[in-house]
Amino acid sequence: MYLLQEDTGIMDITTLGLGIGEKRGVMQMHVKGVTTLSGCNYVKEILTKLGLDFTFYANDGETIDAKGQIFSCVGSAKALHQAWKVSQNLLEHLSGIASYTKALVDEARQENPHVEVLTTRKHFPGVKKMVLEAVLAGGGAPHRLGLYDSILVFAQHRMFLESKEELECQFERLKRKFLEKKIVVEVDSFKEAYYFATIGADILQCEKMDPKELRRCVDLKEKFPQLLISATGGINIENAQKFAACGVDFLVTSSPYYAKPKDVKVTMQLKR
Amino acid sequence: MYLLQEDTGIMDITTLGLGIGEKRGVMQMHVKGVTTLSGCNYVKEILTKLGLDFTFYANDGETIDAKGQIFSCVGSAKALHQAWKVSQNLLEHLSGIASYTKALVDEARQENPHVEVLTTRKHFPGVKKMVLEAVLAGGGAPHRLGLYDSILVFAQHRMFLESKEELECQFERLKRKFLEKKIVVEVDSFKEAYYFATIGADILQCEKMDPKELRRCVDLKEKFPQLLISATGGINIENAQKFAACGVDFLVTSSPYYAKPKDVKVTMQLKR
Amino acid sequence: MYLLQEDTGIMDITTLGLGIGEKRGVMQMHVKGVTTLSGCNYVKEILTKLGLDFTFYANDGETIDAKGQIFSCVGSAKALHQAWKVSQNLLEHLSGIASYTKALVDEARQENPHVEVLTTRKHFPGVKKMVLEAVLAGGGAPHRLGLYDSILVFAQHRMFLESKEELECQFERLKRKFLEKKIVVEVDSFKEAYYFATIGADILQCEKMDPKELRRCVDLKEKFPQLLISATGGINIENAQKFAACGVDFLVTSSPYYAKPKDVKVTMQLKR
Amino acid sequence: MYLLQEDTGIMDITTLGLGIGEKRGVMQMHVKGVTTLSGCNYVKEILTKLGLDFTFYANDGETIDAKGQIFSCVGSAKALHQAWKVSQNLLEHLSGIASYTKALVDEARQENPHVEVLTTRKHFPGVKKMVLEAVLAGGGAPHRLGLYDSILVFAQHRMFLESKEELECQFERLKRKFLEKKIVVEVDSFKEAYYFATIGADILQCEKMDPKELRRCVDLKEKFPQLLISATGGINIENAQKFAACGVDFLVTSSPYYAKPKDVKVTMQLKR
Amino acid sequence: MYLLQEDTGIMDITTLGLGIGEKRGVMQMHVKGVTTLSGCNYVKEILTKLGLDFTFYANDGETIDAKGQIFSCVGSAKALHQAWKVSQNLLEHLSGIASYTKALVDEARQENPHVEVLTTRKHFPGVKKMVLEAVLAGGGAPHRLGLYDSILVFAQHRMFLESKEELECQFERLKRKFLEKKIVVEVDSFKEAYYFATIGADILQCEKMDPKELRRCVDLKEKFPQLLISATGGINIENAQKFAACGVDFLVTSSPYYAKPKDVKVTMQLKR
Amino acid sequence: MYLLQEDTGIMDITTLGLGIGEKRGVMQMHVKGVTTLSGCNYVKEILTKLGLDFTFYANDGETIDAKGQIFSCVGSAKALHQAWKVSQNLLEHLSGIASYTKALVDEARQENPHVEVLTTRKHFPGVKKMVLEAVLAGGGAPHRLGLYDSILVFAQHRMFLESKEELECQFERLKRKFLEKKIVVEVDSFKEAYYFATIGADILQCEKMDPKELRRCVDLKEKFPQLLISATGGINIENAQKFAACGVDFLVTSSPYYAKPKDVKVTMQLKR
Repeated sequence: MYLLQEDTGIMDITTLGLGIGEKRGVMQMHVKGVTTLSGCNYVKEILTKLGLDFTFYANDGETIDAKGQIFSCVGSAKALHQAWKVSQNLLEHLSGIASYTKALVDEARQENPHVEVLTTRKHFPGVKKMVLEAVLAGGGAPHRLGLYDSILVFAQHRMFLESKEELECQFERLKRKFLEKKIVVEVDSFKEAYYFATIGADILQCEKMDPKELRRCVDLKEKFPQLLISATGGINIENAQKFAACGVDFLVTSSPYYAKPKDVKVTMQLKR
Repeated sequence: MYLLQEDTGIMDITTLGLGIGEKRGVMQMHVKGVTTLSGCNYVKEILTKLGLDFTFYANDGETIDAKGQIFSCVGSAKALHQAWKVSQNLLEHLSGIASYTKALVDEARQENPHVEVLTTRKHFPGVKKMVLEAVLAGGGAPHRLGLYDSILVFAQHRMFLESKEELECQFERLKRKFLEKKIVVEVDSFKEAYYFATIGADILQCEKMDPKELRRCVDLKEKFPQLLISATGGINIENAQKFAACGVDFLVTSSPYYAKPKDVKVTMQLKR
Repeated sequence: MYLLQEDTGIMDITTLGLGIGEKRGVMQMHVKGVTTLSGCNYVKEILTKLGLDFTFYANDGETIDAKGQIFSCVGSAKALHQAWKVSQNLLEHLSGIASYTKALVDEARQENPHVEVLTTRKHFPGVKKMVLEAVLAGGGAPHRLGLYDSILVFAQHRMFLESKEELECQFERLKRKFLEKKIVVEVDSFKEAYYFATIGADILQCEKMDPKELRRCVDLKEKFPQLLISATGGINIENAQKFAACGVDFLVTSSPYYAKPKDVKVTMQLKR
Repeated sequence: MYLLQEDTGIMDITTLGLGIGEKRGVMQMHVKGVTTLSGCNYVKEILTKLGLDFTFYANDGETIDAKGQIFSCVGSAKALHQAWKVSQNLLEHLSGIASYTKALVDEARQENPHVEVLTTRKHFPGVKKMVLEAVLAGGGAPHRLGLYDSILVFAQHRMFLESKEELECQFERLKRKFLEKKIVVEVDSFKEAYYFATIGADILQCEKMDPKELRRCVDLKEKFPQLLISATGGINIENAQKFAACGVDFLVTSSPYYAKPKDVKVTMQLKR
Repeated sequence: MYLLQEDTGIMDITTLGLGIGEKRGVMQMHVKGVTTLSGCNYVKEILTKLGLDFTFYANDGETIDAKGQIFSCVGSAKALHQAWKVSQNLLEHLSGIASYTKALVDEARQENPHVEVLTTRKHFPGVKKMVLEAVLAGGGAPHRLGLYDSILVFAQHRMFLESKEELECQFERLKRKFLEKKIVVEVDSFKEAYYFATIGADILQCEKMDPKELRRCVDLKEKFPQLLISATGGINIENAQKFAACGVDFLVTSSPYYAKPKDVKVTMQLKR
Repeated sequence: MYLLQEDTGIMDITTLGLGIGEKRGVMQMHVKGVTTLSGCNYVKEILTKLGLDFTFYANDGETIDAKGQIFSCVGSAKALHQAWKVSQNLLEHLSGIASYTKALVDEARQENPHVEVLTTRKHFPGVKKMVLEAVLAGGGAPHRLGLYDSILVFAQHRMFLESKEELECQFERLKRKFLEKKIVVEVDSFKEAYYFATIGADILQCEKMDPKELRRCVDLKEKFPQLLISATGGINIENAQKFAACGVDFLVTSSPYYAKPKDVKVTMQLKR
């Protein structure tokens, strides 16, 4: 498994040099503070690969109390030392994302119980699957996986369309070609929002609008009952409630990806 | 290239549906605030793979002023839209790490001009090479790559050695077996530090000590002139100066890995 | 490149044994009948990898006349013989899919000019990217890439929901959770269609209905103006017109994947 | 496993959104018509990877009656939905190839009980191992795996040999160099066939000859008792008997690769 | 490229720490003694990947005199130090195999000018392509690539056939099934050799026979004019002539794989 | 698993053609002469992958007597024939390295009981992990894994430093930057050795020195008590004692990599 290989490489020279590899021990991991878990499935895969016997006391998506135990495992010191940091690291980083997501969702729903929290594709490059699973564990959902699974029209697309006629013609073509997809358009003013609602956008992604302008966009839903409105641009746990309160259908944010890892405490004991 | 594939997948359906893929444009990226760059080499590889012509105005390890330009590239809208987010994302995340590292190094050296800053293996799992290059770009260095390249004796190793005799015998064996390596021991008290200095540790990694105890450890260098002392455990830009001021040889920290990405602004223009 | 490696393996022993590897030659490929091309980009990658100089006279998505030339390339006999079959094979298989797709689209649009043709995920396992590019070259589009990019509720999902209440509750949850996605439901009767239109499906995928029942489903669009209707199940070039004529928005079919490869003729000449 | 990953990607969002993932069910697959099976080993690997318990009632290479059951499996709805289409797809495509091969072999042997059926390397690029296993399941065999495992001299090789002397000298060199291989030569006339038999070809692959000329080639076996004769070029189930009847040792064909997939019916039930 | 990655890993810390990476230099490699070259193509790939300009003075398969130059390259110290050992290592190991093969071929042909030298699949696991290219560079050829490209019947197969009837029946089946392959049988006595010649083996691989028995086997060629005879088992440069002198068609040996690497001298100079 | 795939490829055509695949048998492997084992873990992985039941009688790092049994396994002829050569090959090559290493260590320690034997990165390209495990099994240790895990300053680095001042300045920089690493310098004369000891090298790697000069270098340890001295260049089992006797701390050698494989005898029996 790649994550294990990244940390262990050719061999664990400290354990080898100390000659303790064949001794048996128990390793346990506990959270320090309240934590929404993610990463358990990867850890199980690592423990299995290393031949360790394990018991999990909680799983991905569960929120456990401070000092709660995640798992216990038993086996050779050699296997325990290979499993240690990579497992702790996975749990800390991914639970950090899950816990932040959960807190952000809770925050946003205080003012708007139906709002959803979706996360962008601006995560650390190369680790998409892991971070999206963490977001789901925290009660969020992916916004778009990449360029292949969804339509999102940016200003950076529109500037290649050199007239209003060309824009409307190609927008129509896009809708027909990918008619199973909702058409999302990023807009940065009410005027743009109104225009794209008129020509048939399904979702308006309102970029960095102030609450007043954002509410005007939300009000478009009266005239266009199928329309969905999202807010994006700098949304985080500090301001999520403010944006949610404008009545948007969902928030689009990258902030969970930068959450501080949650502390996971590791204990190891010799098993005689 | 994997990072490009992760974001683009099968195809970019927005650009395809809008029929703009063959139009030509220019894309530019600028930093927003002062930034120490990292990620340029990955971006060059992506731009090359996509057949875009490019000019870089700065490179990894350089610190550029607010609003400074990183690069400009020219080519088809199809290629530009594939390059966009993955390139921006790489530059933002990796320059975030590099810039934080640089600030931490500058901070630490105010009180101790020779102190070094080394970063742990507790980065996001799966992206070691990228993050370590970012740390180097910021003036730090890797502490250990993994279990395979260095010796680091933790309490979690020592508890498998069941008597003082066994410990000292195996410690000696370790030193002989990997005699080209320095032997690093993590200690959490002066007493432990003194003991391991006595039996031949090359480096004492002082875990979560208060400044007073840390200074006592540093004073061991008088008696053991080859000995190096490092501080670790919760070190970040807020407290780096305090730890450095104790006279340690180096700081060991994970904090740069959690640095907020640096903003990179992207502009795109049609090229007629 | 994997496709080249699959055919060449360790080495081309015939060319090696005949001692002709260093001689220079020209290889040309022409279509036999009228052909909508696909596969050119893969062939260019192969020719480049082998160091062959080449000129293409047509590209993916173009329909060329019988006997029309696709490309010409020049280089060593060793490289030409490595390029030959894998290139021919790619062009034949992928152009077969593209040409069939185009014919099916043309057929369907005779009765319903706005109908779209989307292809399923029931292609040969392991080759998704290639076959979907061929479908696009022929004027079709992908229906769904897999389980990750779209919502499609089958009877095989519904049977896990044990009451009408549970179904409606979970259907609502699905819509909220993935609110950027259209909700597609596969139905096999007008009754089912009507029910799912009522509870908020965006698209009804009508499985193996006869034209009469299918038209009844299409008529639901009057009451539910946002609703889209597709037909699926055994659709191919023989019957596409009949289904399109019912007024559906799109057809969902696997038939292009089983299209016979289009013949590509290869000529090779010694270049003195 | 790659095939599973191709279809499932990051996650199955329909099952997730409906909240049914943890419910338990049974999935069964049956053939619709008489079918020679292939693909069972891949399906077993997928089911195992997903943690499903399964029982197979038939295996690769067996011909089962219409409506016969292939396998049954039990587990979570999450795992069943991941297993479903990729398993069905493998069985349908590979059993399509196996069943066509078997029919073609049976057809050919009616007139020539010892004739063998070998399939070319003109399968869909990238899936060699799977399709060749299907051919073997149907009673055929691979003709050549690629350029590395066999000698096959085409006209496209001979044109690099600029005189009769050079040809014969290099042909002799080829035979000596790879003396453990039979030397196969593709010929398109009796004259060529006779010539290559004379200079020592082991097998003559007769390309697109009419039965009369093909029989003349077969008659060369009287004079050259070790010689084998094969027919190739457009051979399929319609004409296999005609070519076999000429007395050739084997047929070389690509037609099984384009066989229509065999229908496999999937049923799923809730397991309370 | 994997081989480069294996040696360089995350980064070259010596060159980095000395701060010399951007200086420019020239690196040259010369053979020490007379050497038949192999590995040049891999080295070219490495140098290209690293952006070094290079000129080769000799190529794979050429025998160059003592002190002859292989190549020269120019570029940054960073690139030169990454290229150095992996290139030298490839050239030394692969030219060791090629040179030994050439010497063994020369030795064997002194007594039997038409004898061929084929090498087994008992090379270092994981490096088949490289070592077989080296064998070809030295004038040998591969015996069999693996289990998939050739038929070789060992005693370890025959013991699963429980009677003479079963053996002969299955042997006949094997010949028919893979009629494009020569049937090779490993035998360890004249008696076995005679028996398998009688039932239709194409090649007898005589395992560890003394010259007298081997000659008796070679004499079978009079009675069976198509039959080929090879010798195997402990053949190396010391005894190749003795075995070749028995009149066998070819020798099968693993000895080139254990050849000592050929020394390659590396010089580096600063380029001001 | 890659090593298995390399040998088996698409399928084992001999076993298939003979129709013996489903018969059951037992395979055993024994060493011929006294052997220090390596490769057992890879073989276990292969046997497990193939579904064979096995018992090992010895493991990596153990030295077993002539004719001692390594393991026994039971299963289908198909699986046994796939496991055979690749397992034998791994055990023979890796035990060859382990056994040679052990003999070399024993030889060297006769004159210098504390000397260590470290092996270079000049092994066959592409197989680092396997060969280093074999070296460890024989009682040696890796010298350096590659460019990334250790500092080794060669003359080829020093020539980029254009004055004594630049050299000393950059040497100091190197020591500070990678202060957790020992600084190893390769020297080829006492004069160089003395100089680098003076400026702070931790280890002097003495390249191709005669015993007299080497002893002078060893004597530097009196003046520089932390200094370690190694000998390198052409060290093998013939001369290891002579170099060890000079009092060096360790020998650096590539010779175990070229050790002749140890013979492993394979027996197979039908299990009725």
